[in-house]
Amino acid sequence: MARPDGSRLEVAATRLVPLFGGTQLALRLSIRSIDYRGPLLLESCIEASEAAVRADDPRIGAGVGAALIVGERRIDGGAAVMTQAAALSGIRVAVAQVHRAGAALSPREPILANPKVVGQRYAAELAPGGAIVIEKFVAWSAGTDPAPLDRQAVAAADAAASRGFDALERDQSEAWSAFWRDADLGIEGDAPLDQALQFSLFHLRQSTPADGRHGLAAKGLTGQGYEGHAFWDTEVFALPVLQMTAPALVRASLDWRLRTIEPARAHARELNHPLGALYPWRTIAGAEGSGYFPSGSAQYHINAAVAFALRLHHLGGPGEPVSAGDATMLFETARIWMQIGRHDSAQDGAFCIYSVTGPDEYSALVNNDCYTNRMAQMHLRYAADVAERLASAAPQTYRAVAQAIDLLEGEPVAWRRAADAMYLPVDARRGVQPQDDGFLDRPLWNFATEPGDERPLLLRFHPLTLYRHQVCKQPSVVLADVLVGEGIAAPQKRRDFDYYEPLTVHDSSLSASTWSILAAELGLVGSALDYFREGARLDLDDLHGNASHGAHMAAMAGTWLSLVWGFGGLRIADDGELRLRPVLPPAWTAYRFSLQWRGCLLRVNVSAAGVRYDLERGTALAFRHHGAAQSLSAGEAIVLALPAVSPDVMPRHTDAVIFDLDGVLTDTAELHFRAWSRLAAEIGVPFDRKTNERLKGVDRMTSLDIILERAGRPFDADERRALAARKNGYFGELLEELTPRALLPGALDALRDVRERGVRVALASASHNARTIIAKLGIADAFDYVADPGKSGRPKPAPDIFLAAAAALGADPARCIGVEDAVAGITAIKSAGMKAIGIGDFRLLSDADVVVPDTATLGIKRFL
Amino acid sequence: MARPDGSRLEVAATRLVPLFGGTQLALRLSIRSIDYRGPLLLESCIEASEAAVRADDPRIGAGVGAALIVGERRIDGGAAVMTQAAALSGIRVAVAQVHRAGAALSPREPILANPKVVGQRYAAELAPGGAIVIEKFVAWSAGTDPAPLDRQAVAAADAAASRGFDALERDQSEAWSAFWRDADLGIEGDAPLDQALQFSLFHLRQSTPADGRHGLAAKGLTGQGYEGHAFWDTEVFALPVLQMTAPALVRASLDWRLRTIEPARAHARELNHPLGALYPWRTIAGAEGSGYFPSGSAQYHINAAVAFALRLHHLGGPGEPVSAGDATMLFETARIWMQIGRHDSAQDGAFCIYSVTGPDEYSALVNNDCYTNRMAQMHLRYAADVAERLASAAPQTYRAVAQAIDLLEGEPVAWRRAADAMYLPVDARRGVQPQDDGFLDRPLWNFATEPGDERPLLLRFHPLTLYRHQVCKQPSVVLADVLVGEGIAAPQKRRDFDYYEPLTVHDSSLSASTWSILAAELGLVGSALDYFREGARLDLDDLHGNASHGAHMAAMAGTWLSLVWGFGGLRIADDGELRLRPVLPPAWTAYRFSLQWRGCLLRVNVSAAGVRYDLERGTALAFRHHGAAQSLSAGEAIVLALPAVSPDVMPRHTDAVIFDLDGVLTDTAELHFRAWSRLAAEIGVPFDRKTNERLKGVDRMTSLDIILERAGRPFDADERRALAARKNGYFGELLEELTPRALLPGALDALRDVRERGVRVALASASHNARTIIAKLGIADAFDYVADPGKSGRPKPAPDIFLAAAAALGADPARCIGVEDAVAGITAIKSAGMKAIGIGDFRLLSDADVVVPDTATLGIKRFL
Repeated sequence: MARPDGSRLEVAATRLVPLFGGTQLALRLSIRSIDYRGPLLLESCIEASEAAVRADDPRIGAGVGAALIVGERRIDGGAAVMTQAAALSGIRVAVAQVHRAGAALSPREPILANPKVVGQRYAAELAPGGAIVIEKFVAWSAGTDPAPLDRQAVAAADAAASRGFDALERDQSEAWSAFWRDADLGIEGDAPLDQALQFSLFHLRQSTPADGRHGLAAKGLTGQGYEGHAFWDTEVFALPVLQMTAPALVRASLDWRLRTIEPARAHARELNHPLGALYPWRTIAGAEGSGYFPSGSAQYHINAAVAFALRLHHLGGPGEPVSAGDATMLFETARIWMQIGRHDSAQDGAFCIYSVTGPDEYSALVNNDCYTNRMAQMHLRYAADVAERLASAAPQTYRAVAQAIDLLEGEPVAWRRAADAMYLPVDARRGVQPQDDGFLDRPLWNFATEPGDERPLLLRFHPLTLYRHQVCKQPSVVLADVLVGEGIAAPQKRRDFDYYEPLTVHDSSLSASTWSILAAELGLVGSALDYFREGARLDLDDLHGNASHGAHMAAMAGTWLSLVWGFGGLRIADDGELRLRPVLPPAWTAYRFSLQWRGCLLRVNVSAAGVRYDLERGTALAFRHHGAAQSLSAGEAIVLALPAVSPDVMPRHTDAVIFDLDGVLTDTAELHFRAWSRLAAEIGVPFDRKTNERLKGVDRMTSLDIILERAGRPFDADERRALAARKNGYFGELLEELTPRALLPGALDALRDVRERGVRVALASASHNARTIIAKLGIADAFDYVADPGKSGRPKPAPDIFLAAAAALGADPARCIGVEDAVAGITAIKSAGMKAIGIGDFRLLSDADVVVPDTATLGIKRFL
Repeated sequence: MARPDGSRLEVAATRLVPLFGGTQLALRLSIRSIDYRGPLLLESCIEASEAAVRADDPRIGAGVGAALIVGERRIDGGAAVMTQAAALSGIRVAVAQVHRAGAALSPREPILANPKVVGQRYAAELAPGGAIVIEKFVAWSAGTDPAPLDRQAVAAADAAASRGFDALERDQSEAWSAFWRDADLGIEGDAPLDQALQFSLFHLRQSTPADGRHGLAAKGLTGQGYEGHAFWDTEVFALPVLQMTAPALVRASLDWRLRTIEPARAHARELNHPLGALYPWRTIAGAEGSGYFPSGSAQYHINAAVAFALRLHHLGGPGEPVSAGDATMLFETARIWMQIGRHDSAQDGAFCIYSVTGPDEYSALVNNDCYTNRMAQMHLRYAADVAERLASAAPQTYRAVAQAIDLLEGEPVAWRRAADAMYLPVDARRGVQPQDDGFLDRPLWNFATEPGDERPLLLRFHPLTLYRHQVCKQPSVVLADVLVGEGIAAPQKRRDFDYYEPLTVHDSSLSASTWSILAAELGLVGSALDYFREGARLDLDDLHGNASHGAHMAAMAGTWLSLVWGFGGLRIADDGELRLRPVLPPAWTAYRFSLQWRGCLLRVNVSAAGVRYDLERGTALAFRHHGAAQSLSAGEAIVLALPAVSPDVMPRHTDAVIFDLDGVLTDTAELHFRAWSRLAAEIGVPFDRKTNERLKGVDRMTSLDIILERAGRPFDADERRALAARKNGYFGELLEELTPRALLPGALDALRDVRERGVRVALASASHNARTIIAKLGIADAFDYVADPGKSGRPKPAPDIFLAAAAALGADPARCIGVEDAVAGITAIKSAGMKAIGIGDFRLLSDADVVVPDTATLGIKRFL
């Protein structure tokens, strides 16, 4: 650095946050004078926290500056120390610093004047070529108990100082090397994804507390978003990764949950459950920190998340019986399900769970949330298993636990009975698992009025509006298919994928990896890769525009999961056996990952040459490769064939789009009006635009009947046929004027977009002139089929013409979209069991699934 | 009053709050000395509001003291004036006082020292027999606009002073006399109810603002509960009363709603509705004041309540077309339904309404709330009617309104279509209207664990717990049956009544009158009278223990409604015709009420002699008496026959109660255990209490099979029959010891309680010794039927024995209650389609509808 007078100093700083060994921060600062001569004053301070973030966005911390009160500040021997306390929770933190200063530096008066700062000063005289070095060691201690935190912090800082910076740096380097050696992973042929993988695992590893006293913050150590709170995604996303890369951290995280079981019990009591423990949706010290229970406490699935991680940890461990603490945690959480669910006689005794909120917070307070029921099933079954095994393998432990929590003998029996009878319906009409009891009954979200780039929806729409629609922040059902999908058949998962994907807005950073994993499982490699990129590059490319709040820890875990669970196809069988189904996306050359499991270290290398499995550590490991049992002994390796990846097919939700003509692709209404007007004038019947409105979407003969309502005399059938023909003649004359310029704005784009996606196109117009018109408009070859209104049964609002079009294309009506501008047309489409897009005023076309104001804003691609 | 020195003064004060003519308060104070001689100093002050109430009870105001900021205080000529402003809303209020003091009083220094007080002082010298008189006039002016409120208040106080106390007192007396003359009502033969009627109507009348600028506060002028906010019950409860007793106040209330349409539009926008207006659930100045939207903004039915009152007001008016303002309000509110509902193709195109909360706040965020759908139907239909009539009767007004709110021609058509297609299901199994789509699927509330006197539930239970159960704060469905029940058949209403009554906890003060009215309609005169008393005496007897928060205005209105809609049977036909069906409860001698309608005043006198109708004012009125058309001309009267009241039958929900024996009425388990133990020992089979647990609720042969599982060799059928007989012999020996003292605590009460309610009693025990046992216990004659386990089909958990008992009693299983202590028994009861009460541990008996810990706490009466 250059000083104002031009003289120069060379400043070098090295900082490290030790990965193991406590709570220190260490810093080495060297200053060398190049041509400066004079005094040097160093000020080294601890400053009280002043959170700067404050916003209406619930995903950002609300600012904790005012809530952290400075307690003591003092100089204690060689240490400066400050204590602060959180005003509401009573959690206190003490921070201490000590220095190792070179002989050239001498201490000066400490810094105490500012009530939010404590610090120390060092001074030296520098001459050109001269240098000073100072090492600073900081430690903190936090907690709610009345421990002497300040003395703990000073002692820890002192200990770090006596070890010295060099030694700490060496420790750090060794710790990281060991971690990366065991957790080695990478992708060849996709540098951005490879970078994201390493970046994600680094942050996940360094952000996870190892002391068993703290939870993993949603933003890790990277920002103040979510105010440092830990969430359920720790157990569902982060711990499964760490279980395979740093299992000791999983143990620490579970210990933290166990440590906070009392607040979880209090939480359960607050919700009127006389038994059990309910872990909070968001927390620091164990109490529920959400101010809005419908998407806080109502997320009972957090209990299942804890059980999920605990189960994985024990499956991956040495096979010992679970400890009394883990059993307590498992049983106490399992008990809650029995208090919010029951065997419902109206559902043939199936076990139903009421009034919960699933992971998709765009629905709330629902019955039989699919994810919750499936996770509760896993939880109850595992709890019953553990109770049974513990009772026989460690009866004393079991008795002690049972006595401590007053567990009746019949309770584990009831758990298994509930798990076996869990209510897990499939919707008969759509073939999908309903997200909850009422979900499929709700209207679809109108994406057309909601531009896709203004996300998240929660910042723009009232919860009531979100709750009222089929719209998902993240895919609850698909997450269940991924986490506890063993018994779910592939076609079921595929239907779930296809149904929920267009309803999902991915406003949660957890969404992408879930989709990626299921897409890979279903062989949708292109989709899987797209979602993988979206999740993996989330923070590096700031895809959600909120990386400034901090990095998304669970999404970072999702990056690992997308590789290992997704393309690696890893699943854990009920008995703990690893099952892998690796595939190689065509875009990549190779990829590799490492798994720690039951004391073994398994390397998996996937390349065009096949999949190489190396058992690098451990005596033996059995696993499956694409379903075939394999076994490796210590040091052994095996190369197995890689299945061919089927051609990269995007999921397709739509077989055909069936367009109406008038008002959708062109507007011949004016021509019809002119033709009818001419006829009406000739026969002396009053006819005006108001009557004309009633002809919208109605066939020719019915139109004539409407016009003749005001005729002075009845017309018999022959006369009416003649009149209709005459009008058609007039209309035909007018049609001669038509050119492609009469296409409505957006019509060509719409036809082109559908074809481009490989979806078929049909025309279902009530007009007998439809073929002439599309020829004049120059779009005759845009259609795979043009329905003949004369041969397609009853007119709209009957569904006949749309069903005829679908049949002609061999399309499933449930996978067809109809596009209409008239109420009768929308009714026809819906009666045909198709999805309806209305073009016009949403007040009139409210029965359509989606309404757009005009063809120009149709954007048909969004619905395919 | 006596002074400390023994001298005496006579003090007389008269206060009045003028019913008409502005915002004044007047007070006259006279002081006469009997034997006091000396100076007299009077201090007359305006003190700033210091709300004292502060509690966690949401029904109490949270305290507004700190929120009301004192602005100006000054002496302005002869007036003292103070302004205050509400910190958040910006609403300001100015209060002024002036005095008329007798000559003996002379003014002194004003009172200004205390920053929260302004006032005036007057002094006099008194001698024995001497007297002073002072009149004080207070006026206030409030608003959000920047009007000179202080000057308005001073002018109003001055005007009152110049009129003088005597004149104001005369005005007041005349105003009240006129009101009571027109609104005359009463009951002979029930003084407490008569008192409650007068008391309620007085408070309702005096609390309703007449200026069109304010809403009726939930607690009127009587207390700070609900912080002075107005609610939807104004329109549904208070305005129907005032429409018949003081119609001008209804106009004023509707004007206030119209005045606040802009905040209602803003509220709709906040909920993402681009069109229309959504009136707030609670408000002062028009903005939604609830902080918890699931039971605030989600109560969309408030819009229908406004339409309901508006419709009633126009039906009872002179028959003119509705004004542009009223039409605007009606159309803007109707539009909201089209944005939260749609014709659902899965329900055959029925119009469904999603994600709302009905009046029963113990459910929230539901689909197709019955009350909401029915009220929306009325609203949409009426809005379509008004649009049609206005378009033809006052086309200019209609065009102006349509243009101002951008109303499309098709909208009213769509309203009628939605109303006609409204989704109004009836549950096939129970025959009742479901409160909402999910309501009937939820578990029943466990009243047994919740003592009835600790109300309201909302203070003790988390909303999630309430939402999870079939429990009603107030009866939404029954309220719909009352308000818009014209097209609903009587048996349907009766089923609704019977189903929802035991689910309703009446935590709302609105509940009692609703039940009373429907009970009267259904001929349940005893119930009707019980509920009438409960609602009418609510505040006088402080039945909810919260009269200190203020009187319940809507419940007070409900008192009038219970009389007039209930026993008077008044309903308003769609064309505005009054339809009366008076009955006379046997407990009363006579009752009377007065109805103002279409410019007429109709007196109705009901006594044993018949019903006398007097048309006291108006030229002619057509109405119906018990369905028969009647017509009266000016001054005419008619006496019509009163139908006989059918015998006073309480609604009965239960045909029979079917008891298990062991563990419910007595505990012979110990005797069985001793008998089995003896047998097992004799044949050398291990048998312990753990195995014995499995015999609970299981028949003898199956019990033997369970015991023989651990036998060393198989036993053939003959051997097993012999063993069972042997055990039975041992058991018979032990039975000889049984006496009535072996009855479980509470067993006798339970049997007696059921019989007392006229409900039949059966025994369904798996024990072949049941008859012997009940004889020994001395309860053989407590049963109408004792099922024979040998002739009643398969053992429990099959439902056979319970079905056999029901069949023998001719009871409908759906109207039977089974009481059991074993899981198999509960399963049997539920499989039989009966309600199950479990006795024992709720963790094991969680499938029962209700679980109580033991027979002593059964309290069977609650469930009948």
